[in-house]
Amino acid sequence: MADRIAVIGCGAAGATAAMQARKFNRKAEITIFNIEPYSQYSRCGLPYTISGKVEDFEDLILTDEDNWSMMKIDAKLQTTVTEINHDSMILKYEGPDESGELEYDALIFATGAENADPPIKGLDKKRVYGLRTLNDAKALAKEVDKAKNVVVIGGGLVGVETAEAFHECGADVTIVEFLPHILLAMLDSDMAKIVEDHCQEHGVNLVLNTAAQEITGSDEPKGVIIKNRESGEESEIPADIVIVATGVRPITELAESIGCKIGPSRGIVTDEKMLTNIANVYACGDCAEGAEFITKNRLTGGLGTIAVRQARVAGINAAGGDETFPGIVGAKVTKLFGMEIASTGLTKDMADKYEVPLAVGSIKGLTKPPYYKGGKEIKVKTYYHKETGKLVGGQMVSLEDAAMRINVVTLGIQHNIDAADLFDFENCYAPAICDTWDPMVTSALAARRRLKI
Amino acid sequence: MADRIAVIGCGAAGATAAMQARKFNRKAEITIFNIEPYSQYSRCGLPYTISGKVEDFEDLILTDEDNWSMMKIDAKLQTTVTEINHDSMILKYEGPDESGELEYDALIFATGAENADPPIKGLDKKRVYGLRTLNDAKALAKEVDKAKNVVVIGGGLVGVETAEAFHECGADVTIVEFLPHILLAMLDSDMAKIVEDHCQEHGVNLVLNTAAQEITGSDEPKGVIIKNRESGEESEIPADIVIVATGVRPITELAESIGCKIGPSRGIVTDEKMLTNIANVYACGDCAEGAEFITKNRLTGGLGTIAVRQARVAGINAAGGDETFPGIVGAKVTKLFGMEIASTGLTKDMADKYEVPLAVGSIKGLTKPPYYKGGKEIKVKTYYHKETGKLVGGQMVSLEDAAMRINVVTLGIQHNIDAADLFDFENCYAPAICDTWDPMVTSALAARRRLKI
Repeated sequence: MADRIAVIGCGAAGATAAMQARKFNRKAEITIFNIEPYSQYSRCGLPYTISGKVEDFEDLILTDEDNWSMMKIDAKLQTTVTEINHDSMILKYEGPDESGELEYDALIFATGAENADPPIKGLDKKRVYGLRTLNDAKALAKEVDKAKNVVVIGGGLVGVETAEAFHECGADVTIVEFLPHILLAMLDSDMAKIVEDHCQEHGVNLVLNTAAQEITGSDEPKGVIIKNRESGEESEIPADIVIVATGVRPITELAESIGCKIGPSRGIVTDEKMLTNIANVYACGDCAEGAEFITKNRLTGGLGTIAVRQARVAGINAAGGDETFPGIVGAKVTKLFGMEIASTGLTKDMADKYEVPLAVGSIKGLTKPPYYKGGKEIKVKTYYHKETGKLVGGQMVSLEDAAMRINVVTLGIQHNIDAADLFDFENCYAPAICDTWDPMVTSALAARRRLKI
Repeated sequence: MADRIAVIGCGAAGATAAMQARKFNRKAEITIFNIEPYSQYSRCGLPYTISGKVEDFEDLILTDEDNWSMMKIDAKLQTTVTEINHDSMILKYEGPDESGELEYDALIFATGAENADPPIKGLDKKRVYGLRTLNDAKALAKEVDKAKNVVVIGGGLVGVETAEAFHECGADVTIVEFLPHILLAMLDSDMAKIVEDHCQEHGVNLVLNTAAQEITGSDEPKGVIIKNRESGEESEIPADIVIVATGVRPITELAESIGCKIGPSRGIVTDEKMLTNIANVYACGDCAEGAEFITKNRLTGGLGTIAVRQARVAGINAAGGDETFPGIVGAKVTKLFGMEIASTGLTKDMADKYEVPLAVGSIKGLTKPPYYKGGKEIKVKTYYHKETGKLVGGQMVSLEDAAMRINVVTLGIQHNIDAADLFDFENCYAPAICDTWDPMVTSALAARRRLKI
C-alpha cells in the first residue's frame, strides 16, 4: 500500500485517479499536479461553449479547489513536474507560487495528449486555433462574433463538433479532411457518407480526400490552400479563422524519462492493472495504452469513458487495491445537426488491420413502428467474427436513438455474445418507442443467415 | 415435418407463426383462421388512433390479403374454428362465405386474450368500451369529438395510454385504479408515483386504491360510482364515456377442448419449443404461457415482443424446424406526456412472489452531463439477486432515453451478468448524449457496495 501517491495531470483521468485513490485509502497522502490553471474540466464539452449549449466555461469545471481540500488531496495547479528521479522516488515541480520536491511511493501518469500539429505552413498565424484546452475555447469564444469564414482542418470528432458549433453561430464553415471521408476512426465509408450528406444539407461545406497545404495571409488567415489528393489540383478557400483538429499525440516524455515503455500507438504501455513496466508506476487516460477488448491489440482510448475507467483502476491499485480494467471496446458517439452517430468495437478498417475476418448484418430500418408518426430512418450495421459468429462491432446512424442503441452492442461485445444471441435479444417495444423487432435484432438475423448459425 | 399446418388466430403471434412456417417450409399447406374481419394488425397501436399519432386505421394493418396469397398461405378471415377433433386431426370452421373442415398435421394456437370484464354494474350500457380490437378503436374514434368526461377503469398500460389519448383530444380524463398505484405490473410504487405526478401535472385525474362499483345512467353513462378501498367512502364521478381496461384473460377454450393443459397464469402450458402437452400442437402469444427468464416460473407474456418471438419458434418448429424460445424477460415500456417509462425483468413485487432475495441500486441522475443544456432527470433502479449478485431487473423513468437504456439491462439479464459486470459496462459518452458514467452504471456501483462484490 502506497502512503504517498503523486498524480501527474488533472484531466478526467488524473482527477478520477486521485479521487478513487482517496476513496479507497483515507490515509494516503495524495498530490495532484496540473500544468493548466484550472482543475478538472470536461474537454469534450469545449466545442459546445462556442454554440452556447454549454452556457458558461465554469460549468465545464467538474472539480473545484474546495473539492480537493475537502478530499484532503493537495492539488497543485499551473504547476509542472519538471523532473523525476525514480530511483530515489522524488519528483521536482515548478508552480507560480511554489517550487519544490515531493517524495512518492506510487506515481500515476495522467498526462493526457496534445494536438499533433500537421505539416501545414502558416500554423503560427493569429486566429489559428486548436481546441484542446479551456484556454483554447476561451480564445475561440471571443472570435465567434467576428467569424465569417471558418475552415476546420480535420473531420474527426473534435473537428465536426467544432464545425457544427461555428455553423450554428452563423459562420460559413468548411471541413477539410485528408482521408476520403470524415469520422473514419469510428465509421465505415458508407456510414460516413450518410453523415456527410446530412452535414452538407445543413450547410457545412466538406472537402474530402484533400490536404490542407498552407494558411495564407500575413498576420491573420486570408485563406487555406488545399490540394485534392487524387487530382493534385490546388485551390484556395477563404478563411478568417482556422481550427486545426488533425488528431492528438500522447504526452509521454516524463514517463519515458524514468524508463516507461511506449507502445505501438505511442502511448505508455500498461497492463490490465494499469501498471506500467515499472513497479508502483501507473498510467491512465489519453497518455496510456490499453488492450482493445476483442483482439487485445494495444491502443490509446482517446475517450473520456476509457480515461475515467482506467483512472479508477489506476487510482485504487496505487492506493493498495486490486482492480482490473477489462479492455477498450471503444464506443464512440456524437450528435450533429440532430443526427446521432454511434459506433462501437471494430470498424471494417480496424478489423482488416487486426486481421479479423468479418461477417456483417446491415439493415435500413425505422426507429419506431411504421404506423406511428414520427419514426426516423436508421441505418444499422453489426459486425461478427466470420468463424466464431461473435459480435465484434456495430455502427448506427439516425435522427434519433442511435447512441442508446449502440450501448446494447457494446454490452454484447463485452459478454462475448454471437449473432444468434443478439437475434434472441428481447428489445423493448411500444408504438411510441420501437417496433417488436428492433432494427439491430434484424441486423443480427441478416448476419445469422450469412454465418449459418 | 408437418405437411398441413393450421394456425388459429391472426394477431401478432398467429401471423408471425404462419409466415415463419412458410419461410422455413416452402411446401407445407398453411391455413390461418381469424375471428376478426381484419388480417394482422398492431393491437398496441390502437390507443394512438384516438390521438391521431396513428393517422389511419389501415396503417395498423401489417399484413393484407395480398401478402397472404403471395406467401401461399390460406387466410380465412372472419372465420371461427368451432370444433377440433384431434384424434382424427380435423377441425371445423365457420366463415361468412364458407364453412368446412380442414385436416391438419400440426396445430398452432394463437388465440390471444380478451378483456376480462370486472365485477362492475352497468358494463352493458352504450358508450362503455374496451380497447382490444380494431373495431373497438373504430367505435371509440367516433366518440372522440363528443367525449367530455372520460373515465378509464384500470391504470395498466392500455388504460394509461388510452387516457393520454383522450386527454390530448381535449377530454377531461380520470383513471380509476383498484391498486394503490398505476402500472404496478411493471413498476415499483416509488417509480409509479413519479409517473402519477407527471400525469397529474399534465391534467389527468387519478383515483387510486379505488374500486369502480357501478356505471350510472340509463342508456348511456352519466357517471361512475367509485369506492375508496381504504376509507370505504363512495362517490360518483361524471362520465359520458367509460373505458374498461382492467386486464385480459387468455382465450384457451378450444385448446382445452382437445386436452391442452392450462397453467397457473391461465395460459396454455408450453415448453421451450412452444409445444403444448400434446404432440404437434403448439401455442404462442397471449394465449400461451412461457418461462419467466430468471426463475422459470410460468407466465403469459402479454407483450408483442414475446408474441412474435414465441410465434417464430412455434411456426418454424411446426414446419419441421428446431428453434428454442429463451424465456420471457418481460421488457415493458411506454411514453406518457413525453415521459419514458421502462421496466424489465423482476419488479420488487414479482421478486417477492417468486421468493427471489433482492439487492437494489437506486440512483437519481441526469441523462446528459450536467454542463450540457437540456439533460433530463432520470430515476434508475437496478435489481440483483442478493446471494449471487446477478442482475434480475431494472426500472427507469425520465423525459428522455429511459426506454433505450432499459435494453442494456435486458441484454444483461439474458446473459447472466452481475452488478460488477454492469459497473464495468462501457456506456457511450458525448456531451450531447450521455455522461462518462451512465446513471445505470452508477446504480450498479451502488448495488456492488451492498452486495460487497
